[in-house]
Amino acid sequence: MTRPAGEAREGTVDRARSRPGGRTARTRTAVLDATVAELVERGYGGLTIDGVAARAGVTRPTIYRRWGGLDGLLVDAVETFAAGQADVPDTGDVDEDLRLWARSILRTLTGPVSGALIRALFGGAGDSPLVAELRHRFWITRVALVRPVVDRAVERGRLPEGTDVEEVIRHVGAPLYYRMLVLGQPLTPEAADLAAAVTAAAAHAGIFVPGQARLGGAARR
Amino acid sequence: MTRPAGEAREGTVDRARSRPGGRTARTRTAVLDATVAELVERGYGGLTIDGVAARAGVTRPTIYRRWGGLDGLLVDAVETFAAGQADVPDTGDVDEDLRLWARSILRTLTGPVSGALIRALFGGAGDSPLVAELRHRFWITRVALVRPVVDRAVERGRLPEGTDVEEVIRHVGAPLYYRMLVLGQPLTPEAADLAAAVTAAAAHAGIFVPGQARLGGAARR
Repeated sequence: MTRPAGEAREGTVDRARSRPGGRTARTRTAVLDATVAELVERGYGGLTIDGVAARAGVTRPTIYRRWGGLDGLLVDAVETFAAGQADVPDTGDVDEDLRLWARSILRTLTGPVSGALIRALFGGAGDSPLVAELRHRFWITRVALVRPVVDRAVERGRLPEGTDVEEVIRHVGAPLYYRMLVLGQPLTPEAADLAAAVTAAAAHAGIFVPGQARLGGAARR
Repeated sequence: MTRPAGEAREGTVDRARSRPGGRTARTRTAVLDATVAELVERGYGGLTIDGVAARAGVTRPTIYRRWGGLDGLLVDAVETFAAGQADVPDTGDVDEDLRLWARSILRTLTGPVSGALIRALFGGAGDSPLVAELRHRFWITRVALVRPVVDRAVERGRLPEGTDVEEVIRHVGAPLYYRMLVLGQPLTPEAADLAAAVTAAAAHAGIFVPGQARLGGAARR
Protein backbone atom coordinates (compact mmCIF):
# COMPACT_ATOMS: atom_id res chain seq x y z
CA MET A 1 0.00 0.00 0.00
CA THR A 2 1.45 3.34 -0.93
CA ARG A 3 0.97 6.43 1.10
CA PRO A 4 -0.84 9.21 -0.84
CA ALA A 5 1.95 11.27 -2.32
CA GLY A 6 1.91 15.00 -1.70
CA GLU A 7 2.08 17.25 -4.73
CA ALA A 8 5.69 18.12 -4.02
CA ARG A 9 6.45 14.42 -4.02
CA GLU A 10 4.91 13.94 -7.45
CA GLY A 11 7.65 16.08 -8.91
CA THR A 12 5.34 17.77 -11.41
CA VAL A 13 4.80 20.95 -9.47
CA ASP A 14 7.91 22.72 -10.71
CA ARG A 15 6.71 22.35 -14.30
CA ALA A 16 2.99 22.84 -13.85
CA ARG A 17 3.08 25.90 -11.59
CA SER A 18 6.40 27.46 -12.42
CA ARG A 19 6.65 31.14 -11.60
CA PRO A 20 9.68 33.39 -11.22
CA GLY A 21 11.58 32.67 -8.04
CA GLY A 22 9.37 29.78 -7.02
CA ARG A 23 10.58 26.91 -9.13
CA THR A 24 13.96 26.42 -7.49
CA ALA A 25 12.39 26.37 -4.05
CA ARG A 26 9.77 23.88 -5.16
CA THR A 27 12.35 21.62 -6.75
CA ARG A 28 14.33 21.72 -3.51
CA THR A 29 11.24 20.81 -1.48
CA ALA A 30 10.35 17.99 -3.86
CA VAL A 31 13.85 16.52 -3.70
CA LEU A 32 14.11 16.80 0.09
CA ASP A 33 10.65 15.28 0.54
CA ALA A 34 11.64 12.46 -1.82
CA THR A 35 14.83 11.91 0.18
CA VAL A 36 12.86 11.52 3.41
CA ALA A 37 10.30 9.26 1.72
CA GLU A 38 13.04 7.03 0.25
CA LEU A 39 14.84 6.90 3.59
CA VAL A 40 11.63 5.85 5.30
CA GLU A 41 10.71 3.24 2.69
CA ARG A 42 14.11 1.75 1.90
CA GLY A 43 16.13 2.55 5.01
CA TYR A 44 19.47 4.24 5.22
CA GLY A 45 21.28 1.53 3.25
CA GLY A 46 18.77 1.58 0.39
CA LEU A 47 18.92 5.28 -0.33
CA THR A 48 20.25 6.18 -3.80
CA ILE A 49 20.44 9.31 -5.94
CA ASP A 50 18.54 7.42 -8.67
CA GLY A 51 15.74 6.55 -6.28
CA VAL A 52 15.42 10.11 -5.04
CA ALA A 53 15.61 11.58 -8.57
CA ALA A 54 12.92 9.23 -9.86
CA ARG A 55 10.61 9.92 -6.94
CA ALA A 56 11.09 13.68 -7.14
CA GLY A 57 10.76 13.73 -10.93
CA VAL A 58 14.11 15.45 -11.42
CA THR A 59 17.28 14.38 -13.20
CA ARG A 60 20.42 13.12 -11.48
CA PRO A 61 22.42 16.22 -12.56
CA THR A 62 19.85 18.44 -10.83
CA ILE A 63 20.69 16.70 -7.56
CA TYR A 64 24.45 16.60 -8.11
CA ARG A 65 24.51 20.29 -9.11
CA ARG A 66 22.78 21.42 -5.97
CA TRP A 67 23.86 18.94 -3.32
CA GLY A 68 27.09 17.46 -4.68
CA GLY A 69 25.87 13.92 -3.98
CA LEU A 70 24.09 11.74 -1.49
CA ASP A 71 25.94 13.04 1.58
CA GLY A 72 25.08 16.68 0.99
CA LEU A 73 21.53 15.75 0.12
CA LEU A 74 21.10 13.77 3.33
CA VAL A 75 22.51 16.53 5.50
CA ASP A 76 20.15 19.10 3.95
CA ALA A 77 17.16 16.76 4.20
CA VAL A 78 17.81 15.94 7.85
CA GLU A 79 18.36 19.58 8.82
CA THR A 80 15.21 20.68 7.01
CA PHE A 81 13.25 17.85 8.56
CA ALA A 82 14.57 18.59 12.05
CA ALA A 83 13.62 22.25 11.73
CA GLY A 84 10.21 21.57 10.20
CA GLN A 85 9.13 19.10 12.87
CA ALA A 86 9.69 21.57 15.68
CA ASP A 87 6.76 23.15 17.40
CA VAL A 88 8.37 25.57 19.81
CA PRO A 89 6.07 26.77 22.57
CA ASP A 90 6.05 30.13 24.37
CA THR A 91 3.34 30.11 27.02
CA GLY A 92 5.22 32.29 29.49
CA ASP A 93 5.58 29.30 31.84
CA VAL A 94 8.75 27.26 31.40
CA ASP A 95 7.23 24.11 32.94
CA GLU A 96 4.38 24.22 30.45
CA ASP A 97 6.75 25.10 27.59
CA LEU A 98 8.88 22.05 28.38
CA ARG A 99 5.77 19.89 28.56
CA LEU A 100 4.60 21.12 25.17
CA TRP A 101 8.09 20.56 23.74
CA ALA A 102 8.03 16.98 25.04
CA ARG A 103 4.62 16.52 23.39
CA SER A 104 6.10 17.85 20.16
CA ILE A 105 8.93 15.29 20.39
CA LEU A 106 6.29 12.63 21.03
CA ARG A 107 4.49 13.61 17.83
CA THR A 108 7.75 13.47 15.87
CA LEU A 109 8.59 10.02 17.24
CA THR A 110 5.13 8.57 16.68
CA GLY A 111 4.32 10.19 13.33
CA PRO A 112 4.19 7.65 10.47
CA VAL A 113 6.82 9.43 8.38
CA SER A 114 8.80 11.27 11.06
CA GLY A 115 8.93 8.25 13.38
CA ALA A 116 10.14 6.02 10.56
CA LEU A 117 12.78 8.58 9.65
CA ILE A 118 14.01 8.74 13.24
CA ARG A 119 14.21 4.95 13.32
CA ALA A 120 16.07 4.89 9.99
CA LEU A 121 18.52 7.56 11.15
CA PHE A 122 19.07 6.60 14.76
CA GLY A 123 17.90 3.02 15.04
CA GLY A 124 19.70 1.23 12.25
CA ALA A 125 22.09 3.53 10.42
CA GLY A 126 25.29 2.31 12.05
CA ASP A 127 28.23 4.51 12.89
CA SER A 128 29.74 5.94 9.71
CA PRO A 129 31.17 9.47 9.77
CA LEU A 130 28.21 10.64 7.67
CA VAL A 131 25.72 9.22 10.16
CA ALA A 132 27.65 10.92 12.95
CA GLU A 133 27.41 14.16 10.97
CA LEU A 134 23.66 13.69 10.42
CA ARG A 135 23.09 13.09 14.12
CA HIS A 136 25.15 16.15 14.96
CA ARG A 137 23.19 18.34 12.52
CA PHE A 138 19.91 17.01 13.80
CA TRP A 139 20.93 17.85 17.36
CA ILE A 140 22.29 21.32 16.50
CA THR A 141 19.12 22.19 14.60
CA ARG A 142 16.83 21.05 17.39
CA VAL A 143 18.83 22.80 20.12
CA ALA A 144 18.86 26.07 18.18
CA LEU A 145 15.07 25.91 17.89
CA VAL A 146 14.19 25.11 21.48
CA ARG A 147 17.01 26.98 23.22
CA PRO A 148 14.90 30.20 23.53
CA VAL A 149 12.44 28.37 25.80
CA VAL A 150 15.14 27.85 28.43
CA ASP A 151 16.99 31.12 27.76
CA ARG A 152 13.78 33.10 28.31
CA ALA A 153 13.10 31.32 31.60
CA VAL A 154 16.60 32.15 32.86
CA GLU A 155 16.27 35.80 31.75
CA ARG A 156 12.94 36.07 33.55
CA GLY A 157 14.40 34.57 36.71
CA ARG A 158 12.24 31.46 36.49
CA LEU A 159 15.28 29.19 36.21
CA PRO A 160 18.65 29.69 37.96
CA GLU A 161 21.43 31.69 36.29
CA GLY A 162 23.98 29.42 34.65
CA THR A 163 21.49 26.66 33.78
CA ASP A 164 23.04 24.44 31.09
CA VAL A 165 20.51 24.86 28.30
CA GLU A 166 21.67 21.92 26.19
CA GLU A 167 21.51 19.55 29.14
CA VAL A 168 17.95 20.65 29.90
CA ILE A 169 16.97 19.98 26.30
CA ARG A 170 18.74 16.59 26.32
CA HIS A 171 16.91 15.48 29.45
CA VAL A 172 13.47 16.32 28.06
CA GLY A 173 13.96 14.21 24.94
CA ALA A 174 16.11 11.38 26.30
CA PRO A 175 13.42 9.32 28.06
CA LEU A 176 11.26 9.37 24.94
CA TYR A 177 13.99 8.31 22.50
CA TYR A 178 15.13 5.73 25.07
CA ARG A 179 11.66 4.23 25.30
CA MET A 180 11.28 4.00 21.55
CA LEU A 181 14.75 3.09 20.30
CA VAL A 182 16.26 1.17 23.19
CA LEU A 183 13.48 -0.35 25.27
CA GLY A 184 10.87 -0.64 22.53
CA GLN A 185 8.27 0.53 25.05
CA PRO A 186 5.15 2.50 24.12
CA LEU A 187 5.32 6.26 23.85
CA THR A 188 2.46 7.90 25.69
CA PRO A 189 1.46 11.48 26.48
CA GLU A 190 2.07 10.59 30.14
CA ALA A 191 5.66 9.59 29.35
CA ALA A 192 6.20 12.93 27.61
CA ASP A 193 4.67 14.92 30.49
CA LEU A 194 6.77 12.99 33.00
CA ALA A 195 10.04 13.61 31.11
CA ALA A 196 9.25 17.32 31.04
CA ALA A 197 8.20 17.45 34.72
CA VAL A 198 11.34 15.59 35.85
CA THR A 199 13.54 17.98 33.89
CA ALA A 200 11.65 21.05 35.10
CA ALA A 201 11.85 19.98 38.76
CA ALA A 202 15.60 19.40 38.44
CA ALA A 203 16.05 22.71 36.61
CA HIS A 204 14.20 24.63 39.35
CA ALA A 205 16.39 22.87 41.95
CA GLY A 206 19.50 24.14 40.15
CA ILE A 207 20.71 20.68 39.13
CA PHE A 208 21.53 21.91 35.62
CA VAL A 209 23.88 24.63 36.85
CA PRO A 210 27.34 23.11 36.27
CA GLY A 211 29.02 22.16 39.53
CA GLN A 212 25.69 22.13 41.37
CA ALA A 213 24.63 18.57 40.63
CA ARG A 214 26.49 17.05 43.56
CA LEU A 215 25.66 20.00 45.81
CA GLY A 216 21.99 19.67 44.88
CA GLY A 217 22.10 16.09 46.05
CA ALA A 218 24.11 16.88 49.17
CA ALA A 219 21.88 19.77 50.24
CA ARG A 220 18.91 17.45 50.28
CA ARG A 221 20.47 14.90 52.62
CA MET B 1 43.69 -6.88 15.65
CA THR B 2 42.01 -9.49 17.81
CA ARG B 3 41.05 -8.91 21.37
CA PRO B 4 42.75 -11.33 23.81
CA ALA B 5 40.23 -14.15 24.24
CA GLY B 6 39.29 -15.17 27.77
CA GLU B 7 39.71 -18.82 28.68
CA ALA B 8 35.98 -19.47 28.56
CA ARG B 9 35.99 -18.04 25.05
CA GLU B 10 38.66 -20.48 23.92
CA GLY B 11 36.17 -23.27 24.43
CA THR B 12 38.76 -25.63 25.92
CA VAL B 13 37.85 -25.11 29.55
CA ASP B 14 35.08 -27.68 29.63
CA ARG B 15 37.48 -30.42 28.47
CA ALA B 16 40.63 -29.38 30.29
CA ARG B 17 39.16 -28.83 33.73
CA SER B 18 36.09 -31.04 33.71
CA ARG B 19 34.85 -32.07 37.11
CA PRO B 20 31.50 -33.49 38.25
CA GLY B 21 28.79 -30.84 38.14
CA GLY B 22 31.05 -28.17 36.70
CA ARG B 23 31.29 -29.11 33.08
CA THR B 24 27.76 -28.21 32.08
CA ALA B 25 28.06 -24.82 33.72
CA ARG B 26 31.39 -24.17 31.99
CA THR B 27 30.01 -25.21 28.61
CA ARG B 28 27.11 -22.83 29.15
CA THR B 29 29.47 -19.99 30.04
CA ALA B 30 31.70 -20.72 27.04
CA VAL B 31 28.74 -20.75 24.64
CA LEU B 32 27.18 -17.57 26.08
CA ASP B 33 30.54 -15.78 26.02
CA ALA B 34 31.03 -16.92 22.43
CA THR B 35 27.56 -15.61 21.55
CA VAL B 36 28.37 -12.18 22.94
CA ALA B 37 31.77 -12.16 21.22
CA GLU B 38 30.23 -13.12 17.85
CA LEU B 39 27.50 -10.53 18.27
CA VAL B 40 30.12 -7.87 18.98
CA GLU B 41 32.39 -8.87 16.09
CA ARG B 42 29.83 -9.70 13.40
CA GLY B 43 26.80 -7.75 14.47
CA TYR B 44 23.28 -9.00 14.95
CA GLY B 45 22.85 -9.99 11.30
CA GLY B 46 26.10 -11.98 11.21
CA LEU B 47 25.39 -14.21 14.19
CA THR B 48 25.11 -17.93 13.38
CA ILE B 49 24.97 -21.16 15.36
CA ASP B 50 28.01 -22.37 13.41
CA GLY B 51 30.00 -19.29 14.36
CA VAL B 52 29.11 -19.61 18.04
CA ALA B 53 29.78 -23.37 18.09
CA ALA B 54 33.19 -22.95 16.46
CA ARG B 55 34.20 -20.15 18.79
CA ALA B 56 33.00 -21.97 21.89
CA GLY B 57 34.55 -25.29 20.79
CA VAL B 58 31.27 -27.16 21.02
CA THR B 59 29.16 -28.99 18.46
CA ARG B 60 25.98 -27.65 16.90
CA PRO B 61 23.84 -30.33 18.63
CA THR B 62 25.15 -29.14 22.00
CA ILE B 63 23.69 -25.73 21.28
CA TYR B 64 20.43 -26.99 19.79
CA ARG B 65 19.90 -29.41 22.70
CA ARG B 66 20.21 -26.73 25.32
CA TRP B 67 18.88 -23.59 23.65
CA GLY B 68 16.70 -24.89 20.82
CA GLY B 69 18.33 -22.53 18.35
CA LEU B 70 19.61 -19.04 17.81
CA ASP B 71 16.64 -17.28 19.40
CA GLY B 72 16.83 -19.14 22.69
CA LEU B 73 20.58 -18.74 22.75
CA LEU B 74 20.35 -14.99 22.21
CA VAL B 75 17.74 -14.52 24.92
CA ASP B 76 19.87 -16.45 27.44
CA ALA B 77 23.05 -14.59 26.43
CA VAL B 78 21.42 -11.17 26.74
CA GLU B 79 19.82 -11.95 30.09
CA THR B 80 23.06 -13.32 31.48
CA PHE B 81 24.98 -10.34 30.15
CA ALA B 82 22.45 -7.85 31.56
CA ALA B 83 22.63 -9.46 34.98
CA GLY B 84 26.41 -9.80 35.00
CA GLN B 85 27.06 -6.18 34.09
CA ALA B 86 25.12 -4.83 37.03
CA ASP B 87 26.91 -3.33 39.95
CA VAL B 88 24.11 -2.53 42.37
CA PRO B 89 25.05 -0.09 45.11
CA ASP B 90 23.74 0.12 48.67
CA THR B 91 25.37 3.08 50.43
CA GLY B 92 22.36 3.96 52.56
CA ASP B 93 21.91 7.19 50.56
CA VAL B 94 19.58 6.94 47.57
CA ASP B 95 21.17 9.94 45.78
CA GLU B 96 24.57 8.32 45.99
CA ASP B 97 23.14 4.90 45.04
CA LEU B 98 21.58 6.39 41.90
CA ARG B 99 24.86 8.13 41.07
CA LEU B 100 26.78 4.87 41.42
CA TRP B 101 24.16 3.08 39.32
CA ALA B 102 24.56 5.72 36.61
CA ARG B 103 28.33 5.20 36.75
CA SER B 104 27.75 1.45 36.39
CA ILE B 105 25.62 2.10 33.27
CA LEU B 106 28.42 4.34 31.99
CA ARG B 107 30.92 1.50 32.39
CA THR B 108 28.58 -0.88 30.54
CA LEU B 109 28.10 1.57 27.66
CA THR B 110 31.78 2.43 27.35
CA GLY B 111 33.27 -1.04 27.93
CA PRO B 112 34.88 -2.47 24.79
CA VAL B 113 32.75 -5.62 24.78
CA SER B 114 29.67 -4.46 26.66
CA GLY B 115 29.44 -1.18 24.71
CA ALA B 116 29.74 -3.01 21.41
CA LEU B 117 27.05 -5.44 22.50
CA ILE B 118 24.72 -2.60 23.44
CA ARG B 119 25.32 -1.01 20.04
CA ALA B 120 24.71 -4.32 18.27
CA LEU B 121 21.51 -4.93 20.21
CA PHE B 122 20.03 -1.48 20.39
CA GLY B 123 21.80 0.49 17.69
CA GLY B 124 21.43 -1.62 14.60
CA ALA B 125 19.34 -4.69 15.21
CA GLY B 126 16.12 -3.42 13.65
CA ASP B 127 12.66 -4.24 14.89
CA SER B 128 12.01 -7.99 14.61
CA PRO B 129 9.90 -9.72 17.29
CA LEU B 130 13.07 -11.41 18.57
CA VAL B 131 14.84 -8.08 18.98
CA ALA B 132 11.78 -6.74 20.80
CA GLU B 133 11.96 -9.78 23.08
CA LEU B 134 15.70 -9.26 23.69
CA ARG B 135 15.12 -5.62 24.58
CA HIS B 136 12.30 -6.59 26.90
CA ARG B 137 14.43 -9.24 28.64
CA PHE B 138 17.33 -6.83 28.98
CA TRP B 139 15.04 -4.24 30.59
CA ILE B 140 13.30 -6.74 32.91
CA THR B 141 16.65 -8.08 34.09
CA ARG B 142 18.10 -4.65 34.77
CA VAL B 143 14.99 -3.41 36.56
CA ALA B 144 14.89 -6.47 38.80
CA LEU B 145 18.50 -5.83 39.80
CA VAL B 146 18.31 -2.13 40.60
CA ARG B 147 14.74 -1.99 41.92
CA PRO B 148 15.88 -2.58 45.55
CA VAL B 149 17.79 0.73 45.49
CA VAL B 150 14.55 2.67 45.01
CA ASP B 151 12.37 0.33 47.08
CA ARG B 152 14.70 0.70 50.07
CA ALA B 153 14.62 4.50 49.80
CA VAL B 154 10.82 4.50 49.80
CA GLU B 155 10.69 2.10 52.77
CA ARG B 156 13.11 4.31 54.69
CA GLY B 157 11.05 7.41 53.96
CA ARG B 158 13.80 8.97 51.81
CA LEU B 159 11.57 8.98 48.72
CA PRO B 160 7.80 9.59 48.65
CA GLU B 161 5.36 6.68 48.97
CA GLY B 162 4.05 5.62 45.57
CA THR B 163 7.21 6.52 43.66
CA ASP B 164 7.15 4.72 40.30
CA VAL B 165 10.31 2.63 40.57
CA GLU B 166 10.57 1.72 36.89
CA GLU B 167 10.26 5.34 35.81
CA VAL B 168 13.03 6.33 38.21
CA ILE B 169 15.27 3.64 36.74
CA ARG B 170 14.37 4.67 33.18
CA HIS B 171 15.27 8.29 33.82
CA VAL B 172 18.70 7.46 35.23
CA GLY B 173 19.74 5.48 32.16
CA ALA B 174 17.92 7.37 29.42
CA PRO B 175 20.27 10.38 29.05
CA LEU B 176 23.28 8.06 28.77
CA TYR B 177 21.80 5.75 26.13
CA TYR B 178 20.46 8.83 24.33
CA ARG B 179 23.91 10.41 24.22
CA MET B 180 25.53 7.27 22.90
CA LEU B 181 22.96 5.79 20.54
CA VAL B 182 21.04 8.81 19.29
CA LEU B 183 23.24 11.87 19.54
CA GLY B 184 26.61 10.14 19.24
CA GLN B 185 27.93 12.44 21.97
CA PRO B 186 30.67 11.50 24.43
CA LEU B 187 29.76 9.68 27.62
CA THR B 188 31.44 11.24 30.61
CA PRO B 189 31.32 10.68 34.37
CA GLU B 190 29.76 14.17 34.59
CA ALA B 191 26.93 13.09 32.28
CA ALA B 192 26.29 10.05 34.47
CA ASP B 193 26.29 12.10 37.69
CA LEU B 194 23.97 14.66 36.12
CA ALA B 195 21.46 12.03 34.96
CA ALA B 196 21.39 10.61 38.49
CA ALA B 197 21.13 14.04 40.17
CA VAL B 198 18.27 15.12 37.86
CA THR B 199 16.37 11.92 38.61
CA ALA B 200 17.04 12.14 42.35
CA ALA B 201 15.89 15.78 42.54
CA ALA B 202 12.68 14.92 40.71
CA ALA B 203 12.15 11.83 42.87
CA HIS B 204 12.53 13.89 46.08
CA ALA B 205 10.06 16.43 44.67
CA GLY B 206 7.49 13.63 44.19
CA ILE B 207 7.47 13.89 40.40
CA PHE B 208 7.60 10.09 40.04
CA VAL B 209 4.46 9.56 42.10
CA PRO B 210 1.78 8.91 39.43
CA GLY B 211 -0.59 11.84 39.12
CA GLN B 212 1.89 14.19 40.76
CA ALA B 213 3.88 15.22 37.69
CA ARG B 214 1.50 17.99 36.70
CA LEU B 215 0.87 19.00 40.31
CA GLY B 216 4.62 19.11 40.92
CA GLY B 217 4.90 21.58 38.07
CA ALA B 218 1.89 23.60 39.19
CA ALA B 219 2.98 23.82 42.83
CA ARG B 220 6.22 25.40 41.78
CA ARG B 221 4.61 28.24 39.82
